[in-house]
Amino acid sequence: MSGPMLKRAADLVERLRTRGPRVHCLMNTVVQKLVADGLSALGAIPSMTSSPEEVAAFVRKADALCVNLGTLDAARREAIGLALAAAGEAGRPWALDPAHCDYSPPRAAFAEGLLARGPAVLRANPAEHALLAVPEGVVGVVTGLHDRIVLGQRAVAVENGHEWMAKVTGTGCLSGAVIAAFLAVEDEPFAAAASAMLAIGVAAELAAPHARGPGTFEPALLDALAALSPQDILDHGRIGDEQG
Amino acid sequence: MSGPMLKRAADLVERLRTRGPRVHCLMNTVVQKLVADGLSALGAIPSMTSSPEEVAAFVRKADALCVNLGTLDAARREAIGLALAAAGEAGRPWALDPAHCDYSPPRAAFAEGLLARGPAVLRANPAEHALLAVPEGVVGVVTGLHDRIVLGQRAVAVENGHEWMAKVTGTGCLSGAVIAAFLAVEDEPFAAAASAMLAIGVAAELAAPHARGPGTFEPALLDALAALSPQDILDHGRIGDEQG
Amino acid sequence: MSGPMLKRAADLVERLRTRGPRVHCLMNTVVQKLVADGLSALGAIPSMTSSPEEVAAFVRKADALCVNLGTLDAARREAIGLALAAAGEAGRPWALDPAHCDYSPPRAAFAEGLLARGPAVLRANPAEHALLAVPEGVVGVVTGLHDRIVLGQRAVAVENGHEWMAKVTGTGCLSGAVIAAFLAVEDEPFAAAASAMLAIGVAAELAAPHARGPGTFEPALLDALAALSPQDILDHGRIGDEQG
Repeated sequence: MSGPMLKRAADLVERLRTRGPRVHCLMNTVVQKLVADGLSALGAIPSMTSSPEEVAAFVRKADALCVNLGTLDAARREAIGLALAAAGEAGRPWALDPAHCDYSPPRAAFAEGLLARGPAVLRANPAEHALLAVPEGVVGVVTGLHDRIVLGQRAVAVENGHEWMAKVTGTGCLSGAVIAAFLAVEDEPFAAAASAMLAIGVAAELAAPHARGPGTFEPALLDALAALSPQDILDHGRIGDEQG
Repeated sequence: MSGPMLKRAADLVERLRTRGPRVHCLMNTVVQKLVADGLSALGAIPSMTSSPEEVAAFVRKADALCVNLGTLDAARREAIGLALAAAGEAGRPWALDPAHCDYSPPRAAFAEGLLARGPAVLRANPAEHALLAVPEGVVGVVTGLHDRIVLGQRAVAVENGHEWMAKVTGTGCLSGAVIAAFLAVEDEPFAAAASAMLAIGVAAELAAPHARGPGTFEPALLDALAALSPQDILDHGRIGDEQG
Repeated sequence: MSGPMLKRAADLVERLRTRGPRVHCLMNTVVQKLVADGLSALGAIPSMTSSPEEVAAFVRKADALCVNLGTLDAARREAIGLALAAAGEAGRPWALDPAHCDYSPPRAAFAEGLLARGPAVLRANPAEHALLAVPEGVVGVVTGLHDRIVLGQRAVAVENGHEWMAKVTGTGCLSGAVIAAFLAVEDEPFAAAASAMLAIGVAAELAAPHARGPGTFEPALLDALAALSPQDILDHGRIGDEQG
């Protein structure tokens, strides 16, 4: 099964670079810069405002949306509601990242409410996934040392990646935004999510030899995302079916 | 014409390092760290608060101000008004960067209102410049692969720079803040703006050979700004007159 | 005196890596990412939300707290009050960093009020320390080229560090957060603070040869924090008693 999926991911990497989709991110304040740089490196065009007055205008200009719940406050909650209304009207796909919702019951409740509004993809770590009830039809991406992409009875595992990813704050948040970028160029969310995780995982492996630790790994990862070619996906991607 | 302008820019780089001016930035949350690090590397002293309760006190301590409209919200709008009032009373020059105002009609309207309050310099990309009516007496800096500095019939082009600049989120915002730093040490805004763009452009060229892509280019650019000498400007700067 | 203190710091570095304490930071928006990455590199688990609705839940999950007053606004003030109430109930130690309080009289007054609520440690630069009246029983850390740790008549100086630290925005803020991480694994605040400053100072010295300037020094510092061993503290730490 891995051959066709790698080919599709390779094609999508090419399509992303060619089309340069705009991705609007409702993103926690900690990692906005890394997420913007990672999207730019892959060829997407990021924007980041969370102001309720402006967010709808930015979403209408965007091709996809990433909603991340880190450092959530009242203004961002309001902005998320307005952004999803604008995305719904414009028919834009969106990915949800309920960052740290296992730390805060009100954030978990807010995440449940957002899941009911129909994201294409939910990206979360295992602890966050354990808390949330993923609705039918939403692709779940469980990130960890290996990443799992799940939709109903279908599941694949992406085995690429590097342990330093877990030491760089925001690589998980970047994954959510990169999934949104792939949603902008691929109608099938399962394929978009699997391709996004392959792109990041392969880039991480290509970056690691240029780094001495998690500090130098971050700029090396951005270099690798900028240099990532379709052939790199074919040569280095490791993805396999799982029992559903 | 380029000889005298290079000499002046070289002198200002020296003056900036000697005086260490304080630059207060009303800056979008995405790039605050890069802007602060870039200013520090050049020898300026950055501050960043956007709190309406505190911003006037910070501006009164500063030698120049940078107002950037990225990730604008109600509190930052209020803070900008208070900051400009304090800057006006203290006679401090300021630069305006209407980041992404082409995405949001209310932001464009707010930018027009600020232009009427008399910035020394407007820094923007071509799409943003196309939207805004620059008042007489305000220096326009149009950043791109080459940068243009315009005042009435006078125009120069700075040809330094590197393509990776466009891939690192915040290098444009950093330009606005560096212009403010040069305004703090040079009374003529045209010379300050041209010198700032020369400093960044030359630093970018000196940084690129030390980087492997846009990720490693960012720390290399900071290294180059910290190491930039007046002689580097004389040796590598490329600036020329344009038809007005 | 330096032998026993180095041994203790080396033990605490080991203990921090083994236990992986959670450190919640009320942190200015400029440096949240660097602080999170620095804590992760040392083995701690950072969180950063400043939302009044959520901060108490995060603090109850944390082992220690860092309160930094940079980019302070009304919501963060409210969140700090709620965070300290939660920390008090849960018996969690906390460190105060009154960043830039010498720029803003209301911030200085707010810092004085917080000092009365009993932080374990006050970390500040000399200008900030000069403004604040440190209550009896609070450990003072005065950061500079050399760092001084003071409690009543007792004082030690940590001589490690590197001049590039002052050129990277947020290394001081990171010190405050690292002190909080050491408070989570050591009951005596004086020993925790001295050990934290040794860890950062030694890491800075080990990082510098891998950097070309302040830009590349930042990722190198994170690499060095991630690689820092107890033996590095014993081999390179320089700490000495001062006249009280």
